Amino acid sequence: MPVRKPVLDPPFNVVRASHVELGVRDLGRSRAFYVDCLGLLVSDETEDALYLRAVEERNHHSIVLHRSHEPAVHALGFKIASEEDLDRAAFWFGRKNLPVSFRELPHQGRTLRTTDIFGMPLDLYFRMEQAERMLQKYAAYQGARIQRIDHLNCFTPDVQASYDFYSDIGFRLTEYTETDDPDPQLWAVWLHRKGNVHDLAFTNGSGPRLHHIGVWTASTLDILHICDVMATSGYLANMERGPGRHGISNAFFLYVRDPDGHRVELFTSDYLTVDPDLEPIRWSLRDPQRQTLWGHPAPKSWFEEGSVFPGVALREPALAAQPIVAR
Amino acid sequence: MPVRKPVLDPPFNVVRASHVELGVRDLGRSRAFYVDCLGLLVSDETEDALYLRAVEERNHHSIVLHRSHEPAVHALGFKIASEEDLDRAAFWFGRKNLPVSFRELPHQGRTLRTTDIFGMPLDLYFRMEQAERMLQKYAAYQGARIQRIDHLNCFTPDVQASYDFYSDIGFRLTEYTETDDPDPQLWAVWLHRKGNVHDLAFTNGSGPRLHHIGVWTASTLDILHICDVMATSGYLANMERGPGRHGISNAFFLYVRDPDGHRVELFTSDYLTVDPDLEPIRWSLRDPQRQTLWGHPAPKSWFEEGSVFPGVALREPALAAQPIVAR
Amino acid sequence: MPVRKPVLDPPFNVVRASHVELGVRDLGRSRAFYVDCLGLLVSDETEDALYLRAVEERNHHSIVLHRSHEPAVHALGFKIASEEDLDRAAFWFGRKNLPVSFRELPHQGRTLRTTDIFGMPLDLYFRMEQAERMLQKYAAYQGARIQRIDHLNCFTPDVQASYDFYSDIGFRLTEYTETDDPDPQLWAVWLHRKGNVHDLAFTNGSGPRLHHIGVWTASTLDILHICDVMATSGYLANMERGPGRHGISNAFFLYVRDPDGHRVELFTSDYLTVDPDLEPIRWSLRDPQRQTLWGHPAPKSWFEEGSVFPGVALREPALAAQPIVAR
Amino acid sequence: MPVRKPVLDPPFNVVRASHVELGVRDLGRSRAFYVDCLGLLVSDETEDALYLRAVEERNHHSIVLHRSHEPAVHALGFKIASEEDLDRAAFWFGRKNLPVSFRELPHQGRTLRTTDIFGMPLDLYFRMEQAERMLQKYAAYQGARIQRIDHLNCFTPDVQASYDFYSDIGFRLTEYTETDDPDPQLWAVWLHRKGNVHDLAFTNGSGPRLHHIGVWTASTLDILHICDVMATSGYLANMERGPGRHGISNAFFLYVRDPDGHRVELFTSDYLTVDPDLEPIRWSLRDPQRQTLWGHPAPKSWFEEGSVFPGVALREPALAAQPIVAR
Repeated sequence: MPVRKPVLDPPFNVVRASHVELGVRDLGRSRAFYVDCLGLLVSDETEDALYLRAVEERNHHSIVLHRSHEPAVHALGFKIASEEDLDRAAFWFGRKNLPVSFRELPHQGRTLRTTDIFGMPLDLYFRMEQAERMLQKYAAYQGARIQRIDHLNCFTPDVQASYDFYSDIGFRLTEYTETDDPDPQLWAVWLHRKGNVHDLAFTNGSGPRLHHIGVWTASTLDILHICDVMATSGYLANMERGPGRHGISNAFFLYVRDPDGHRVELFTSDYLTVDPDLEPIRWSLRDPQRQTLWGHPAPKSWFEEGSVFPGVALREPALAAQPIVAR
Repeated sequence: MPVRKPVLDPPFNVVRASHVELGVRDLGRSRAFYVDCLGLLVSDETEDALYLRAVEERNHHSIVLHRSHEPAVHALGFKIASEEDLDRAAFWFGRKNLPVSFRELPHQGRTLRTTDIFGMPLDLYFRMEQAERMLQKYAAYQGARIQRIDHLNCFTPDVQASYDFYSDIGFRLTEYTETDDPDPQLWAVWLHRKGNVHDLAFTNGSGPRLHHIGVWTASTLDILHICDVMATSGYLANMERGPGRHGISNAFFLYVRDPDGHRVELFTSDYLTVDPDLEPIRWSLRDPQRQTLWGHPAPKSWFEEGSVFPGVALREPALAAQPIVAR
Repeated sequence: MPVRKPVLDPPFNVVRASHVELGVRDLGRSRAFYVDCLGLLVSDETEDALYLRAVEERNHHSIVLHRSHEPAVHALGFKIASEEDLDRAAFWFGRKNLPVSFRELPHQGRTLRTTDIFGMPLDLYFRMEQAERMLQKYAAYQGARIQRIDHLNCFTPDVQASYDFYSDIGFRLTEYTETDDPDPQLWAVWLHRKGNVHDLAFTNGSGPRLHHIGVWTASTLDILHICDVMATSGYLANMERGPGRHGISNAFFLYVRDPDGHRVELFTSDYLTVDPDLEPIRWSLRDPQRQTLWGHPAPKSWFEEGSVFPGVALREPALAAQPIVAR
Repeated sequence: MPVRKPVLDPPFNVVRASHVELGVRDLGRSRAFYVDCLGLLVSDETEDALYLRAVEERNHHSIVLHRSHEPAVHALGFKIASEEDLDRAAFWFGRKNLPVSFRELPHQGRTLRTTDIFGMPLDLYFRMEQAERMLQKYAAYQGARIQRIDHLNCFTPDVQASYDFYSDIGFRLTEYTETDDPDPQLWAVWLHRKGNVHDLAFTNGSGPRLHHIGVWTASTLDILHICDVMATSGYLANMERGPGRHGISNAFFLYVRDPDGHRVELFTSDYLTVDPDLEPIRWSLRDPQRQTLWGHPAPKSWFEEGSVFPGVALREPALAAQPIVAR
């Protein structure tokens, strides 16, 4: 029985998925993609980095792009509830023999750099520099009118192990996919802290790798519009999957790839999950509507490709079960 | 050079595509599909027939379903501008040695039954019984909130011949697909009378057959909603293609198949074409964005399957060129 | 009985409302309003004029702004079906003893300048210079994502006389407002050529004056978005009425005033009117849902203010009946 | 300085606003309004009560209607995080000398009935009977396609006192309105537990009374559609305010009154507030965009009318400041 009770009094309090630091090879091309096309706002720009946020966000950044020789993910960022919680987090990770160090990061302040059991780099912090709230500066809305970062989705070589690890620190399961064996095995999990379907999700695959960054829009029409924009402004090949409706999470989605192959999900329409007695929803790996309610299978690339964490060894998953794949 | 000047003073005045008469095997199943699922309104119902209209339509019917042993299309209906035009039409078709007969049809009055050069049955009429306008009875909106019939799309064995025939009676070209040969050949044409992209379209293929009935909704969200409804109420297998954006016509579309395989396109977002000097838009058969702006190829069934006109001989097309097909 | 049969064989063929020439005091402020805020595209710009079009339009301009000492409307533009029709129009207006002159206008070619019986200046032409079609250049969509000009709405001192005049040249009635007298009098009329609710409308009032230019958007959400943009970027005071749903025409609307007080209606959701036997819809002047289906009365300014045609004498209307007015 | 630090370790853990129990005079009329018009789902129906939920909700009910001689609000329901929290709540309210009693309620289980300092009746519980999740049974979506209850908004005679009381039990301030005095006074507060703008709000006025129940829809178009439905199916007089955009909370809203005068807000488009260091947003009582970003003032009824709690004495507010009112 792979599903556990939620840990309602975790050792420290994670608030939500907050940001991601990506390595990109050409800041100009990335700016064209994220700012000119998708419509994200620039909070700060240096010769080596670009700090982006969405219209609702008062945090200084939710996507940080660093100039890099190779495409890479440097860290997944999570907001922690207080400085005391951050200290408790450092203590907890240390006791697990995971690497722990504090750093001062630009615009972000005191940040705990650590990793999970598979070496996936995590940046935990409490306070970030605040930027102007643009939610009601509607003239600044552009492109997909993205409102905020929503979640981070990763490949893991062992979904059960990742689920157990993050459950211990308070992440709660909302939906999951498992095999139909007599002794079912987890194939994917959706875990939340902030009260919707997920802040962090794991899918079975060679990992750890980042599968995608999920960003939220207020309307499905924002997503249809960005399809039209991308398809007619040189980004057709960057549209990987969708638009469509996931069975899982009920999200209306579009998956796009940035110029370095990092995957971004534009998504909307999930639901509230704050009830502590919320019953997680089970999906069979063989249910095609799990992936896409309307029946379109995902392309192979969507199941296989992801962004690597430099210096972190990849492991192949033990579980060999495969979902339905297009083409 | 296959494109001709529009005939602005036709021998008789066609107003628009008006309705279609379909043969269906089980009126109950068809009612479940068209009324309970898609949300069309019932204007009249007899033991052998169901007369349907959409919320904007004051004409008694735009889709007529007759109980039938086999799936069939009995006639494509066009509204003519006056009784005098109808007489002129009878004269014109007679001179072309095409069959001509007048009938009184239920709820429709004096109707000219004739055919085009490939034997495709046409019902021409001026006045139809009027039904209550439901456009502002919003509580009656259901399903896809279809507003009106828009167009009829057919397979023809000879696109150039069909185009020439309908051009002569005033249909005007808005967009077309041709081969990239030095001597290009028409592969598909979109022809209108009412001032948007089409009332009637032809695609190269074994014909004559009806490819689909196009019905119009006011919002792309109506089409996304019917995807969700169909996918979760037993009609997943009836969703054939889409939702997506056509390059041609710019329409946002979803193609569905009724219980007899008749294809219906839910569509919105085309444009105004009333200018007599409107320049038709050319598409290359090899341009994948022609079919779907966002890059998704259409399934094979979409290119190959259609509804037959009983007793009308099918001819294979001379033109062998093929578009890009999925799977 | 004020309603007449439509004239289906008019003396010349008007295609549709095409453009308007406005006098504005400060081209920079007008550009900020029409281009930066509403999102219209600039087709050409000189020191004294700005030529604008919307994303669907291949005609060079639908709104022309001329630098002017006072706010003014210089001409209402209509597209005519051919050069021969244009000559027939000149003949017809001449026979009515209305002023007739041909001019070559920039980007527009041979243009017939004439007036209606109340002196309202009309520019009739067949061919206009063509501009790039931006309908599928979605990255160029801005602001309200306006697709095309739809109609022109004017005050007239005598609705019946204006209706009779334009009926004679083929404009067809779709909806009308009249008093509830035993001998009812027309208070407003909606007249079309292109097949939707109107190209030209008249309302009882001191006239002739332009009440508003109607421009069309594909989605109600485009209109909600421009409300948000205007309200938060210094244009709150320019929002005069709406958003709302008209009973008449079923249009979803927003009325805004440009920096010179010229009124623009952003609108969507009307219906097809091409049927020659379409029955016009009657509204009582006392029906509050006529104005706004949802019950909000229009402000006084909306009923009283309009743009003048320089040098054209204003007449007060004979009909004193008044609609319901807010505040 | 009326704004306080949030209490992040409250004496017991409130999860969210959960439901409301209303007294209505005619269950049939209420059913027609809530079910046939607004589209809520019926979870259970007895001779004396109707239990309603929205499509996303797995909790058995979010609105309970009881047959009653007079319109009334019997209780505001909040979900508590565990049975232990419920016991802690009972202890905390008891120590404040507020009435405390446990009851078994149909479909709801062990429920703590208590009141706040102004006598407003509160029903606190942990577990409710679960109903079928209809989020992905799209064919069941009707009317406004309401997804879930969002918040409860109340009049209080002393906003500062109510704010202090609910802050002590962990409600967090997101936005507030105050006077512009040198010693500013709170006029309204928005307080949340679940991570968006509010679960509970208070406005200065004769109280305690319920101002409205807020229910959430996924799209602004759902709200526009219900405007059209209500305006054309006999509910025009029930539309009190909107549709519009609040400056406060950024919500797109429509306020309607049920057959007993109970007010329901259909709303969407607010934002995420889970960050513990979220800075509350201050609005001046004199800022007209506070109420409606687009400038439309609210009607007097909206500021003055509310639903009473039977047997609970009303007090007039000490603060006499008034917002801008229409008409």
